Amino acid sequence: MVVSHQTPMKKYSASIDDVRAAAKRIKGIGHRTPVLTNETLDLLAGRKLFFKCENFQKVGAFKFRGGWNAVSLLSDDEASKGVCTHSSGNHAQAVAYAAMMKGIPSYIVMPNNAPKVKLNAVKNYKAKITLCEPTLEARRTTLDDIAEKTGATVIHPFNNPNVIAGQGTAALELIEDVENLDAVIAPIGGGGLMSGTCITTRSLLPNAKLYGAEPEGADDAYRSLKEGKRLPQENPNTICDGLLTGLGENTWNILKNHLNAIHTVTDDEVIKAMKLVWERMKIIIEPSSATPVAVVLSDKFKALEGIENIGIILTGGNVELSKLPF
Amino acid sequence: MVVSHQTPMKKYSASIDDVRAAAKRIKGIGHRTPVLTNETLDLLAGRKLFFKCENFQKVGAFKFRGGWNAVSLLSDDEASKGVCTHSSGNHAQAVAYAAMMKGIPSYIVMPNNAPKVKLNAVKNYKAKITLCEPTLEARRTTLDDIAEKTGATVIHPFNNPNVIAGQGTAALELIEDVENLDAVIAPIGGGGLMSGTCITTRSLLPNAKLYGAEPEGADDAYRSLKEGKRLPQENPNTICDGLLTGLGENTWNILKNHLNAIHTVTDDEVIKAMKLVWERMKIIIEPSSATPVAVVLSDKFKALEGIENIGIILTGGNVELSKLPF
Repeated sequence: MVVSHQTPMKKYSASIDDVRAAAKRIKGIGHRTPVLTNETLDLLAGRKLFFKCENFQKVGAFKFRGGWNAVSLLSDDEASKGVCTHSSGNHAQAVAYAAMMKGIPSYIVMPNNAPKVKLNAVKNYKAKITLCEPTLEARRTTLDDIAEKTGATVIHPFNNPNVIAGQGTAALELIEDVENLDAVIAPIGGGGLMSGTCITTRSLLPNAKLYGAEPEGADDAYRSLKEGKRLPQENPNTICDGLLTGLGENTWNILKNHLNAIHTVTDDEVIKAMKLVWERMKIIIEPSSATPVAVVLSDKFKALEGIENIGIILTGGNVELSKLPF
Repeated sequence: MVVSHQTPMKKYSASIDDVRAAAKRIKGIGHRTPVLTNETLDLLAGRKLFFKCENFQKVGAFKFRGGWNAVSLLSDDEASKGVCTHSSGNHAQAVAYAAMMKGIPSYIVMPNNAPKVKLNAVKNYKAKITLCEPTLEARRTTLDDIAEKTGATVIHPFNNPNVIAGQGTAALELIEDVENLDAVIAPIGGGGLMSGTCITTRSLLPNAKLYGAEPEGADDAYRSLKEGKRLPQENPNTICDGLLTGLGENTWNILKNHLNAIHTVTDDEVIKAMKLVWERMKIIIEPSSATPVAVVLSDKFKALEGIENIGIILTGGNVELSKLPF
């Protein structure tokens, strides 16, 4: 457990001022997503839960926030050459959508085994898609080629400071809308959302606890925090398709100095939590979103003292309805 | 097409004052459900759609409103003997939940082929369940027996005036929350929701159009309006399990004098609309709820002139996730 005010202050890649500036850029373009509550889930968790519903965000995930902020901050010259990234998931949609809204080109590298539904979503946002072999190596070299040929700016999905600041706006709205939060919890993939959440929460609620949630099958952040150094994600194996990636240098630097703890859960717990949210809250969340829900429903987390009101960021709702795990 | 102000005024079983009184009873007990919008669906429908999300209501459906209002209006003597009804669906849950909250007994007659998930929901609300053969005749006689033995008050699912007034509160909130509605549309089963919606809407927005939505496989209200007399529901066959019943005398009397038209859609259109709402709005609605959505997406409805802003009541979200139609 590492608490920020016990370590000397350092410069992080994004500040609360960056988050506030991002919020201004996002206002009126993205949705101010609702915060929902549910009595049954409160009972099961033993405390009040406040769900920040980023599944209702543009492109169906919080990723819109960071993508929009990063694209908005390009110079006119940069913007004219467009943006590019590699992703098979929500970040691809976020970048493509932001570019479309700005009227600039986007180039998205996707693995040739990406589900058709995701491919089509990105295509609908007018992105130029390049398919490559489904390896990280192939994705990186293909992206490098495209960036060199087109001059497009690479928008990294989580290590980009403007992306981190954008993701921090979800917690900003959550804290504005809910009084007396004692804690905030979010899932950790590359750490962009969690980093932004840390910056915002520690600034506005200095005494609130900050928790990360990870599936056991992709627990690099958990292991990293335990070891005190950034460890790679190795052979991730989880249903949480948004949490397969490892931490970046910028996100790790923020997480290690802000997080109170990271809790891991099994895929079975994730699926159970996901189904519970669907059945009881009548909202659609993807497996990654269910990870923090599974954590707050676990006996270990329920035993923690001093937390009456906890904010949970539900990260997205992009699910293939024909392939449900229940 | 029958318009109210062309017919002489008559007394309906519920008035706007009854609806307002019901709203006071429901306030703080039921949810003031949100009104959601969605750009993609607006584009597809060619106008602005305002979705009143009763899938987020207590017990997962608007039925809570009428059930709670009717149970609240019992005298102390009546209440002490409890309430009873026959239903395999959302009304059973509504009555059982209302009784539990009031601390009075409830007796629910359910067909012996009712899905276990619905049985358990009603059981969780502490109702005494009596199973009977799955015929309307058996349900009625079993209910009569119970009412006689226990002295419990029968709460009819839609023909009860207090139920109608309660259901009218959904439209009341919708009209309070959205400016400039030109029309309101809701599904028709027994007609309780649509009747309450008519009373409220015609009173607050005298010029707004009122539309009913029915599946082709349970189109008794459509046929009744066409013939000018209440016709029975015969061998209903539709995926919309909340719309299988026929109209009551009280609901028909309101509908025939208020509705501008009833539009029917096929089950295929309903399933398509339901999937679209799940995918795009990330909310869970049951097939009955998708009926008015399917109507507003139909070419025939899109061709109607003079409707810029339409309110759609999404009636409920109680779906068996293991038996999805897509």
